[in-house]
Amino acid sequence: MSTSIRIKVIVPVTFPGWDDDVKRVCRSAADSATRIEVMHLARGPASIESMFDEEWAALPILQAVAGAEQDYDAAIIYCFGNPALEAAKEAVSIPVVGLGEAAQVAAMPLGDRLGVLATLSSTTTRHWRKARALGTAAKLVSVRALDIPVLDLVDRGRVRERAQAVVQQMVMEDGIDVLILGCGSMVDLGPELELTFDLPVVVPALAAVKLAELYVRAGLTQSKRAYPLPGKKERTDTDGLG
Amino acid sequence: MSTSIRIKVIVPVTFPGWDDDVKRVCRSAADSATRIEVMHLARGPASIESMFDEEWAALPILQAVAGAEQDYDAAIIYCFGNPALEAAKEAVSIPVVGLGEAAQVAAMPLGDRLGVLATLSSTTTRHWRKARALGTAAKLVSVRALDIPVLDLVDRGRVRERAQAVVQQMVMEDGIDVLILGCGSMVDLGPELELTFDLPVVVPALAAVKLAELYVRAGLTQSKRAYPLPGKKERTDTDGLG
Amino acid sequence: MSTSIRIKVIVPVTFPGWDDDVKRVCRSAADSATRIEVMHLARGPASIESMFDEEWAALPILQAVAGAEQDYDAAIIYCFGNPALEAAKEAVSIPVVGLGEAAQVAAMPLGDRLGVLATLSSTTTRHWRKARALGTAAKLVSVRALDIPVLDLVDRGRVRERAQAVVQQMVMEDGIDVLILGCGSMVDLGPELELTFDLPVVVPALAAVKLAELYVRAGLTQSKRAYPLPGKKERTDTDGLG
Amino acid sequence: MSTSIRIKVIVPVTFPGWDDDVKRVCRSAADSATRIEVMHLARGPASIESMFDEEWAALPILQAVAGAEQDYDAAIIYCFGNPALEAAKEAVSIPVVGLGEAAQVAAMPLGDRLGVLATLSSTTTRHWRKARALGTAAKLVSVRALDIPVLDLVDRGRVRERAQAVVQQMVMEDGIDVLILGCGSMVDLGPELELTFDLPVVVPALAAVKLAELYVRAGLTQSKRAYPLPGKKERTDTDGLG
Amino acid sequence: MSTSIRIKVIVPVTFPGWDDDVKRVCRSAADSATRIEVMHLARGPASIESMFDEEWAALPILQAVAGAEQDYDAAIIYCFGNPALEAAKEAVSIPVVGLGEAAQVAAMPLGDRLGVLATLSSTTTRHWRKARALGTAAKLVSVRALDIPVLDLVDRGRVRERAQAVVQQMVMEDGIDVLILGCGSMVDLGPELELTFDLPVVVPALAAVKLAELYVRAGLTQSKRAYPLPGKKERTDTDGLG
Amino acid sequence: MSTSIRIKVIVPVTFPGWDDDVKRVCRSAADSATRIEVMHLARGPASIESMFDEEWAALPILQAVAGAEQDYDAAIIYCFGNPALEAAKEAVSIPVVGLGEAAQVAAMPLGDRLGVLATLSSTTTRHWRKARALGTAAKLVSVRALDIPVLDLVDRGRVRERAQAVVQQMVMEDGIDVLILGCGSMVDLGPELELTFDLPVVVPALAAVKLAELYVRAGLTQSKRAYPLPGKKERTDTDGLG
Repeated sequence: MSTSIRIKVIVPVTFPGWDDDVKRVCRSAADSATRIEVMHLARGPASIESMFDEEWAALPILQAVAGAEQDYDAAIIYCFGNPALEAAKEAVSIPVVGLGEAAQVAAMPLGDRLGVLATLSSTTTRHWRKARALGTAAKLVSVRALDIPVLDLVDRGRVRERAQAVVQQMVMEDGIDVLILGCGSMVDLGPELELTFDLPVVVPALAAVKLAELYVRAGLTQSKRAYPLPGKKERTDTDGLG
Repeated sequence: MSTSIRIKVIVPVTFPGWDDDVKRVCRSAADSATRIEVMHLARGPASIESMFDEEWAALPILQAVAGAEQDYDAAIIYCFGNPALEAAKEAVSIPVVGLGEAAQVAAMPLGDRLGVLATLSSTTTRHWRKARALGTAAKLVSVRALDIPVLDLVDRGRVRERAQAVVQQMVMEDGIDVLILGCGSMVDLGPELELTFDLPVVVPALAAVKLAELYVRAGLTQSKRAYPLPGKKERTDTDGLG
Repeated sequence: MSTSIRIKVIVPVTFPGWDDDVKRVCRSAADSATRIEVMHLARGPASIESMFDEEWAALPILQAVAGAEQDYDAAIIYCFGNPALEAAKEAVSIPVVGLGEAAQVAAMPLGDRLGVLATLSSTTTRHWRKARALGTAAKLVSVRALDIPVLDLVDRGRVRERAQAVVQQMVMEDGIDVLILGCGSMVDLGPELELTFDLPVVVPALAAVKLAELYVRAGLTQSKRAYPLPGKKERTDTDGLG
Repeated sequence: MSTSIRIKVIVPVTFPGWDDDVKRVCRSAADSATRIEVMHLARGPASIESMFDEEWAALPILQAVAGAEQDYDAAIIYCFGNPALEAAKEAVSIPVVGLGEAAQVAAMPLGDRLGVLATLSSTTTRHWRKARALGTAAKLVSVRALDIPVLDLVDRGRVRERAQAVVQQMVMEDGIDVLILGCGSMVDLGPELELTFDLPVVVPALAAVKLAELYVRAGLTQSKRAYPLPGKKERTDTDGLG
Repeated sequence: MSTSIRIKVIVPVTFPGWDDDVKRVCRSAADSATRIEVMHLARGPASIESMFDEEWAALPILQAVAGAEQDYDAAIIYCFGNPALEAAKEAVSIPVVGLGEAAQVAAMPLGDRLGVLATLSSTTTRHWRKARALGTAAKLVSVRALDIPVLDLVDRGRVRERAQAVVQQMVMEDGIDVLILGCGSMVDLGPELELTFDLPVVVPALAAVKLAELYVRAGLTQSKRAYPLPGKKERTDTDGLG
Repeated sequence: MSTSIRIKVIVPVTFPGWDDDVKRVCRSAADSATRIEVMHLARGPASIESMFDEEWAALPILQAVAGAEQDYDAAIIYCFGNPALEAAKEAVSIPVVGLGEAAQVAAMPLGDRLGVLATLSSTTTRHWRKARALGTAAKLVSVRALDIPVLDLVDRGRVRERAQAVVQQMVMEDGIDVLILGCGSMVDLGPELELTFDLPVVVPALAAVKLAELYVRAGLTQSKRAYPLPGKKERTDTDGLG
């Protein structure tokens, strides 16, 4: 009955191997009337584990978001770090949702002491900084890392074992009551951790899809007072993206 | 394709006149596979405009939520004040979502300076207190009131005119970039205010429905570490609800 | 010389066994001109260990507070969770003081890193949430639990032993410098813990009595701007309390 | 019946003219069993309107507090700025209470948006800074000044008129719901402001007396973990106070 | 006597017209042993007024910073928005300082209520967000805009007049006590505003130079725990920067 | 080329033994055009380890600062506790910088989770309180103590060993990424700790010197709106300092 919603999911890396998993996990939360299209970048970083990687992904993301504006109702930047998210919100009039922001705000009603399971220790302060900017820091009490590089997350056995150990610390020492998976690639860890530790485990992709659907259905988009349309001006890139 | 989701929407007042509007507005955001059932209370307050009213609604709400647990996948407490929400989250294993919390967390990604349009001045400090508890206070910069009692919100012309004046102040003096309608009855104010002030206007009902769908689709519910199941004990009420 | 002050202390549970102890401990801080009257509830929960319990106690508390307005100068809700406190402050013109709020504000000048010793682990996030609403969270650094149900707090030996172990952690790991007893039933733990850990131990009852006396002597009561008198409206309860 | 409490009230200025008023206002909140002794300084500043003045008062205050330790149960530093308060809490084992801290913590349960009426504009940022250190800043929303020097506060007519104008702004523009008189000399402004603006007006002296009584009755004093006894060491002053 | 310090100042826009002014203003704060080199970008945006512009400047900034690592002791990103600053701090081992962060931290000891004078209203929420991430938000009380595009800041008369009006509001309505010039192009506004409003006016360039000198002299650089060196991985850009 | 800057460094204790080290460490960060003059107090405490000590140092510090105003461009109060700093900022028109404030603001751009290495456990809550007043608390995550009295800091071997153990805890348990030496006497600990723990170690003296130079070069001084000049009034001290 309801008209269909078209969501463009941008996996902001050049590695193509995530696309199918991403489509599957996004699909699992989507309304039947929602069409999910997943893409990865033609240029940019192979994976995102730092602000440096985020900057390498930025222009390609902006290009992808701009490309989505015509034919899609919303775009999702599929990375917990929310790379280029603020710029993307400025650039287009369709709602743009980041994995990390969606996961954190969706987790807030579920508990009072949120924890983020990060991939690498080197990313934890970046997540703290971003939470302060997002305004979610008031409920964030723990960010701990698997210390497994993103591209090795495919070794499910090792990930699973390590996750058990780290989340144990987050529960016992930091007192978390909700766990947020801090990377778009940790999609299958949820059920096992929920069982062991008796706490909700938020998979960011699902939160992002549902938030995107909400904004489309409600006719909402990011505030142009907070994210004003960038004025026209000369901006040059070597391959003429500007 | 996706299995259906059944959501019980509890309008926590004895006034039956809101039910149809509530169903319509909730329906407008819902997945086609979602079934929305709206009910109001058999006993309790006629409207909710204070913590006192909230307490009068509490046990009937808890009874309604408990009644929903068997046959529904999620429950929504349809009041911006989130009456009895924490107790309801403790009481059942299905996700329970409050209008106020859903609206505020869904508004966070849309901007940086949120404003709540309240019904009465006498409710504004209550909203500030609740935002601190919810953890959304970091982005809340303005709570101002129409100063029209809930039951008079049916006078649409008066509401509309007054809303224009108050939101004008919220934009000019408080610098809000997102407006949240601070009462479940202000459902039709959005489009006009969006147009006049060029900012997103969050209708809490839509946020609550989509958040509830997310939790059901993702197999999530409020953390039992944060909202533990109340132990069995003697609790007496005059009509044997206990 | 000074005129007498009449304080109604409402123990918000149906268990009558606390009344004498409560009177004794309240008396110990009271001005000689203060009259303390202790009551428990005729209906409601046997004990309060959750928001669910708090809601069961709410209407009987409001009834008790309203009943006190005529003949008493102040009312104390004798539970660290401050059940129905905000509604009670709205309902009457005499000052109403909650055990938890009194203890926390009275503790603030004594140190910089406050800790609350709770009864059950299941209550700790509730205390964190409430501290944020009360505005005392800035100094709160630790909430840990005895993990002994309220009604078993009568086993003084077990309580004492467990308290030593938990407070040890609060001092060594969380660095507290003031301890607040997080339940109205832990009245006799103070001296021993003070001795062992060399820190002040705040017994909430004493703080509540003295704060109530202050408000009466100073002609103060809760702000009607923050806690407005609930308007008259239809509110129904099965036994006609409304 | 209860044993008597002896409180030393130190007016930390050399001007002797406040003593009687101070005694009267302190007396008005005191338990009948409480003995109030008021003193002013033999050396120090004539009034306190800056951090500079506070430093001039510091050693004489510490001398007075040390002198009180033997014969008194508690000491009050009678200045809203709390001069030398932290050092005094370190120096002695009896509880020491500052006017400003007592007023602010006692005001917290009365409302949600506190305002401090200061004497001079030049003191307002000093009050903001101190509120952050005290941990009360979460509820403080307004500090505005009469802009009348302390020693001119005796011109009651001028003070009254100016107070009406300033508090009007605090209520209308800043939305305060509790007013705190930000100087120990504004003792008689309360009733009139309460009447005009319908909000509680906290007189710091009363809060300080009652808090001091609480600490004495409860056997409490400032935490020696937060305010450790200063070790013995060479400290020289020209007149051999060291 | 002291060895020389070489600082690379990167003006992150393609407009070459600022370079001389930037050199002059940086020089005015520099140690005589400090060598200042100013450069602008060969590609990127003509000016920076949004997150979108910041992303267009990011890779060229990172390239410039990397290029500076060999021959310079420190780098300054000459834009109040601190574009690509976090990534730059990760990328190199020499200290990298942003104009906005330097200005804000250097302003903190000067007062208690900081205000940022922005160029455009559309940039104000961006500055609020960044202040939260920087950790300087506790003292920030006002961000107001000239509403003059960066490239029109050369019209000194118009800028001057408008600045007087806006800062007047920041002082009277927001109570600022320190003014921070929120753009690297507002270099000459200081003296006049200081005179009119009797408050310190922080010119970001000077703060950045002195902070850079401090880090070099003290052998300090950004923490590699907070800003870890990006691992080697495939990162592609169309012109082979990767 | 640049005109010389004269900085008066006030070591606020009567112990003369630090002066040479202080001069050396200050010199190491100073511009070649900067003249550093170090002095200690003729009267006051032998060392500063408490608020009590700070008050004993206050008037001599104010006298020294006033004495510096004529012939110096800036003054530094050489103690991490910043004794009498606010009063000193009020008293004079030249910029006055405290070691503790300079170290903390200079550390903020270097990382996200700052830790202060204090001398004694008894000083840690004092540092937390001060950080809240300074506005740096948002990034402060750890304050731990060597538990070695200031005057024993000359035993370098013992200090070194103990520092390694304490900083190990700060890194592993509290997750600090920047270390601040919390006493002006710990000048030589930096290199070793930096090496062991791979994090920047901020020596407060260097930050203070560079901040003072910045203020002088930029023509800045503390805001007279935040730190107003104390009015003339009678202030008496036994030796006629007033």
